[in-house]
Amino acid sequence: MHFASETSSDGIVERRFAIDGVPGALWSPVAAADGAPLVLSGHPGGLHMLVPAVMRRAIQLVSARGFHVAAIDAPGHGDRPRSEEDAAWVARMQAAREAGEPLGPIVSEFNGLLAERAVPEWRATLDALLDELGPVPVGYRGMTLATEIGARLIAADDRIRVAVLGAAVASDALMDAMRCITIPVTYLLPWDDPEIDRESGIAIFGALGSSEKRMVAFSRPHQRVPWSEVEEVGAFLARHLAG
Amino acid sequence: MHFASETSSDGIVERRFAIDGVPGALWSPVAAADGAPLVLSGHPGGLHMLVPAVMRRAIQLVSARGFHVAAIDAPGHGDRPRSEEDAAWVARMQAAREAGEPLGPIVSEFNGLLAERAVPEWRATLDALLDELGPVPVGYRGMTLATEIGARLIAADDRIRVAVLGAAVASDALMDAMRCITIPVTYLLPWDDPEIDRESGIAIFGALGSSEKRMVAFSRPHQRVPWSEVEEVGAFLARHLAG
Repeated sequence: MHFASETSSDGIVERRFAIDGVPGALWSPVAAADGAPLVLSGHPGGLHMLVPAVMRRAIQLVSARGFHVAAIDAPGHGDRPRSEEDAAWVARMQAAREAGEPLGPIVSEFNGLLAERAVPEWRATLDALLDELGPVPVGYRGMTLATEIGARLIAADDRIRVAVLGAAVASDALMDAMRCITIPVTYLLPWDDPEIDRESGIAIFGALGSSEKRMVAFSRPHQRVPWSEVEEVGAFLARHLAG
Repeated sequence: MHFASETSSDGIVERRFAIDGVPGALWSPVAAADGAPLVLSGHPGGLHMLVPAVMRRAIQLVSARGFHVAAIDAPGHGDRPRSEEDAAWVARMQAAREAGEPLGPIVSEFNGLLAERAVPEWRATLDALLDELGPVPVGYRGMTLATEIGARLIAADDRIRVAVLGAAVASDALMDAMRCITIPVTYLLPWDDPEIDRESGIAIFGALGSSEKRMVAFSRPHQRVPWSEVEEVGAFLARHLAG
């Protein structure tokens, strides 16, 4: 695996890479243990792999758990080119927001299309990462767009053995993916979110095929997950990946 | 406060007491820190304060957190006399179970009556415990019957500052108590429970008046809460009681 850059601070090494034109980052402890687990970390829609929410969670998992964490930019996000079709979707979302119309259906459909494109990109990235790190246990975490992507990725790739998902909007395609998931999952539900429907989240959790599933609802919107919940899902990932 | 007995093992002291004829137990670290918090622990309906579920949770909070934990027998439970009226309710429940009829409505009404009687008993016990321990921070934990009792107790007594509740069945009286609660609460919801209705639990959580509330749903019946969730709510109590 070729790394374009490598920097380190506070005991964490950040290595940047690109697989088939998809930019990514890998954060690791400076002295990673042999066989240390890898967590794939998705970013929310409209943002990119280096936003503070992703970085803080990566640092937490690397520092507190000794894990590797990898992130890539979703299609049309971050430094990646945005197609005319993507731009049209973004314009539709902005128009709906300005008109005070419900965003959910548009976001859900657009995210579904992005997720279909993202799954083979994550799988190629995971191939390369496991070549580099060895056959380490793999988890996935991410909300909103990253749950659309993660649900389809987990349903398609049996190398992922535990996941943290949440704050998605139910659609037929997402519910189908959820039903195919059998690994342990924690689903995060923002109970008071003006943009993400609570009933939709409850339906998604209900559809999850896993025999070992848990839902954590919290009284905040999805952009403000309490840090105690971030640490708690870190412990959940660790229970299933470590040892 | 008079203790009828005191025994210790594995670093934990158990002291038995009775306040106005209500038997109780107080578990503490052998060398408790000054000002160590106190958690009031309720037992499930039909059982008593010394059942393994209560004991294991008490030991966990005393050993891992250094807290005091207190439990009392609910009215008509444990060694306490059972009135003719209580016996009639129990007979109704058994008849419904044998006939394959829904237990929820009977349990809910009976538990509500027991809870009304239990609140002044807990308050008198808490008076005595705080005389003994000093003005330490107080939490409450308990599911099913102990949630019926706890919700009314918390609504009536502002000395309790954090609670873990769960697995209750919605009734008008319980929902009224939930709306009056403003302290941080984790609500435990058994997602796949043949006897406790899921929608009922979601409604109870929705009614909770707390601005800081969280619900943890898990894919087990209420008698088999995963131990990882027990530890997790221990951490939740500690965040709000310690330091």
